[in-house]
Amino acid sequence: MKKETELRATERVDDLLTHELGIIQSDEVFSFSMDAVLLAQFARLPRRGKVLDLCSGNGVIPLLLSTRTQAVIEGIEIQPRLADMAQRSIVMNGLQERITMRMGDLRELHQEVGYGGYDYITVNPPYMPLNGSDMKLNTHQAIARHEIHCTLEEVIQAGARLLRSGGKLAMVHKPNRLAEIIVMMHKYRLEPKVIRFVHPRAGLEANMVLIECIRDGKPEVRLQPPLIVYDDQGTYCPELMEIYYGKEEPS
Amino acid sequence: MKKETELRATERVDDLLTHELGIIQSDEVFSFSMDAVLLAQFARLPRRGKVLDLCSGNGVIPLLLSTRTQAVIEGIEIQPRLADMAQRSIVMNGLQERITMRMGDLRELHQEVGYGGYDYITVNPPYMPLNGSDMKLNTHQAIARHEIHCTLEEVIQAGARLLRSGGKLAMVHKPNRLAEIIVMMHKYRLEPKVIRFVHPRAGLEANMVLIECIRDGKPEVRLQPPLIVYDDQGTYCPELMEIYYGKEEPS
Repeated sequence: MKKETELRATERVDDLLTHELGIIQSDEVFSFSMDAVLLAQFARLPRRGKVLDLCSGNGVIPLLLSTRTQAVIEGIEIQPRLADMAQRSIVMNGLQERITMRMGDLRELHQEVGYGGYDYITVNPPYMPLNGSDMKLNTHQAIARHEIHCTLEEVIQAGARLLRSGGKLAMVHKPNRLAEIIVMMHKYRLEPKVIRFVHPRAGLEANMVLIECIRDGKPEVRLQPPLIVYDDQGTYCPELMEIYYGKEEPS
Repeated sequence: MKKETELRATERVDDLLTHELGIIQSDEVFSFSMDAVLLAQFARLPRRGKVLDLCSGNGVIPLLLSTRTQAVIEGIEIQPRLADMAQRSIVMNGLQERITMRMGDLRELHQEVGYGGYDYITVNPPYMPLNGSDMKLNTHQAIARHEIHCTLEEVIQAGARLLRSGGKLAMVHKPNRLAEIIVMMHKYRLEPKVIRFVHPRAGLEANMVLIECIRDGKPEVRLQPPLIVYDDQGTYCPELMEIYYGKEEPS
């Protein structure tokens, strides 16, 4: 299904897991991480309806979601360079009827599309708060990783605004911010319902958390079994093998 | 070190794990659970200072903590029958100089002891909210399990009141109430710092959460490796073996 596409400097086309999809990436601009892959897998998507991906980057999550639902999928990304990569990947895969990518600021999206119009929202936001360190704030990667254009609270507030009552939001983040995340979700009437921690190995602390909440839900959380990425030999565990290779052994 | 003690109807004396301690129990009144054992192990106690155990039951947590710290240990329990069992266990073990058990209401304790006097607080509170079900509210077990005499919020509020700034509180609870717990802790300036989930088996959802917070702390949580209770053969995992038997194999 992949069409020919023109690439810009440093860009390449990678296969998107086992799906018959390609994605435009660049080590200097943006490449997707395991976090996005696990979030796309974690989301309990509706079969139909309207799905929105915030902080979409190069569009990896909308592309992955398109293999799991017939819903209309939209994405929003604030960096023109990344939104452009995403848009070209969508066209390259012939998915322009299924996925719409918007270049814009999630904090202002409700002014354009109104309140409560989405059934499901995914978001892999910047993980790092701004601090006084000497990071280069103008790079694409810095914007994707640090809360330069939106804080955790702004992301959650935007999600709550855009979701219908009873709609769901799934987020991937760092476990060290779990308490902040839950407090913020509660503040904006997003009630956590399913949480899963990802540990690099069985004996190590979690380095990722997946959390799904419901707009106006009742408090009651399910703690899924931990996802352990590598076994003692440094090999992907069966669940990761399945996600990345479609079976337990790489070919 | 155990002394002779008089037992009341249905009571027995059990060994308290591998410690040279005994504890008065009764299946009809109160027996300690794995939850209390794991909480006592999880708590990162100060070597000295003042430690308080809320909802103390038959005193299992103060007894266990006495093997791990030289701090002064106090307990409070609202049920006279259970506080009496705890007091007799303390005397039986010759620990009356180290542990003080109080019969009383944790909601009013600050009126007696003032604010902010403790360095560390442990609590294994009732897990179940009150609802319309036909439970027998007058039994000792019902009071220990259901929020009859104190709600989650009252427990957390009492902990925050009694803890000095920078002091810590460790709680064991059910994961399905995690979001409520974190929101309540935040409300009373108890910032979650360490969380550990307990899963009965590797592939199952968590059924217990251990959480330690700091009074007036900064937001930053560590997610410890999951504690898996049983292996695939239904045997305690090495960590549980160590806690219960002092080594990896039962004798």
